[in-house]
Amino acid sequence: MLSFLLAAMFFDVADAPAPGPSQIADTAPIGEWIAIPDEDLLVMTLAGSGDTAAKRRVVIELMPAPIASGWIANIRRLAAAHWWDGTSINRVQDNYVVQWGDASEKKPLPPGLATISELDYDLPWGALAQSGATPPITTNVGPRPADVYAAGVLWYRGFPLATDAKPVRQGRRVWPVHCYGSVGVGRNLSPDTGSGAELYAVIGHAPRHLDRNIAVVGRVIEGMEQLSSMPRGTGDLGFYATPGERVGITSVRLVSELPAADRLHFAYPSSTGMTWPRYVAARRNRELPFFTRPAGAADVCNIPVPIKAVPTAK
Amino acid sequence: MLSFLLAAMFFDVADAPAPGPSQIADTAPIGEWIAIPDEDLLVMTLAGSGDTAAKRRVVIELMPAPIASGWIANIRRLAAAHWWDGTSINRVQDNYVVQWGDASEKKPLPPGLATISELDYDLPWGALAQSGATPPITTNVGPRPADVYAAGVLWYRGFPLATDAKPVRQGRRVWPVHCYGSVGVGRNLSPDTGSGAELYAVIGHAPRHLDRNIAVVGRVIEGMEQLSSMPRGTGDLGFYATPGERVGITSVRLVSELPAADRLHFAYPSSTGMTWPRYVAARRNRELPFFTRPAGAADVCNIPVPIKAVPTAK
Repeated sequence: MLSFLLAAMFFDVADAPAPGPSQIADTAPIGEWIAIPDEDLLVMTLAGSGDTAAKRRVVIELMPAPIASGWIANIRRLAAAHWWDGTSINRVQDNYVVQWGDASEKKPLPPGLATISELDYDLPWGALAQSGATPPITTNVGPRPADVYAAGVLWYRGFPLATDAKPVRQGRRVWPVHCYGSVGVGRNLSPDTGSGAELYAVIGHAPRHLDRNIAVVGRVIEGMEQLSSMPRGTGDLGFYATPGERVGITSVRLVSELPAADRLHFAYPSSTGMTWPRYVAARRNRELPFFTRPAGAADVCNIPVPIKAVPTAK
Repeated sequence: MLSFLLAAMFFDVADAPAPGPSQIADTAPIGEWIAIPDEDLLVMTLAGSGDTAAKRRVVIELMPAPIASGWIANIRRLAAAHWWDGTSINRVQDNYVVQWGDASEKKPLPPGLATISELDYDLPWGALAQSGATPPITTNVGPRPADVYAAGVLWYRGFPLATDAKPVRQGRRVWPVHCYGSVGVGRNLSPDTGSGAELYAVIGHAPRHLDRNIAVVGRVIEGMEQLSSMPRGTGDLGFYATPGERVGITSVRLVSELPAADRLHFAYPSSTGMTWPRYVAARRNRELPFFTRPAGAADVCNIPVPIKAVPTAK
């Protein structure tokens, strides 16, 4: 008996009457792919979780400025100080998060970390436009509302954002959303917002109730399976019950700090390019023969921004 | 440094100004808990994935009639024939599904399995009421639309359903939805709908585009972490590239077939009870001090029906 997606495979290779979303993204012209800057890439190397360097590697893309830029400046400082080296994955809670940092809670933080305000969980729409970057676009996915949690969704330089009002006007706010693979900043009770030293990645259904309650700072773009397949912790909230269960972190580095030969390069299709609307449409209505009733809609976390590794230097 | 949900822990134990959703569900009066019938519970025992019987166990709750009842009759027949004994977990695709069945695709199926029509992916609203069961209720979660994929959502005997029209009228259709932990039936291309011998469980963000394209037959209620933490397959679509990577299935049994002393018992709170609306409201607006900006909404897959194990026999 063929499994259901073996069937889909037949149509990945040739003769598909309509291409699937991945195929559409793959065929975006070179000019629509945006290279991720070296200073936006964090490489985390885990201890002993795989037999090759690649199998121990998790790559995180940090969000573009001005989103969460206070926390991200802290994270760059922590990485530059090699602060995470020797820390560990301490918590794996099923259908929720993998969390890492200093299990002892006693390791001194490097100097110069900023205290970030809760006001920075969201930001004015105008801040995006003023950055000189590609302006954001709203993308209503399908005939039904685009989102249960917000008035609208959009993409900005490779990341999904939510927004609180449909018309573009002064006062409109935008904020990053929690999807599978999103990376956020652990914190204590309000008004604490976290320094960035304690991070987590989402390994389950999108916990959108965390939006605007915790800073989202990036997403895992390679090696997500290293995190998501870790044994779940049996302590409260999925913390590992014993120190021996923790997975060591050998190092966390910004790619910009690595020797040129070791730098990893990735790119994503621009959300203002010609291909993006076709990709969104294909996520909304999967047109492979396997799908007999296209959904006509897709939630923001079901429209992941594709990533491709770029083998040569930029 | 305290991790962000250590903070939340403080409020789980006492003196919380407002109880969280789990606390609300836990305090539902005994009369609101509905025992899951023995014939609706499947116990899958995995080979060698844990050091105790409990750690090798995955418990699946099958949907109540009349939902997906053709496939579920097949699944009961397969379980009664001990058909899955000696089969394996063959596919683990990150942020998607774990899939199991006969990797050889040659094991003869037991006699008497029915061929189910695609028309049974959804069913008329009236079929639920006619079953004599608790009638379904619509639950619009928050001021914003309840769902991106359907006109409305509801719960029926412990399971979330979607529906295609808001007013209750002749012709309204309802169907089960794909959430984290949902169990569905692998199939080939249309018009095949699968026999039930090849099953999968969702281990990522809700793949709602599969709704009405594949039969949903139940959900994992215990041992989900056994499935979700399995190493991801490196073959196409997450299939294990080599037979040695597969995880053996020792047995799959209906609880109704087990000796009385070995039967597991579980219960869920009725969606027509007094507690359910309070639970939904608490999922929509998390009122723990940790959440400074309650979401005011929750998608259907972010409102999981709580389950509790019942230690004594019914």
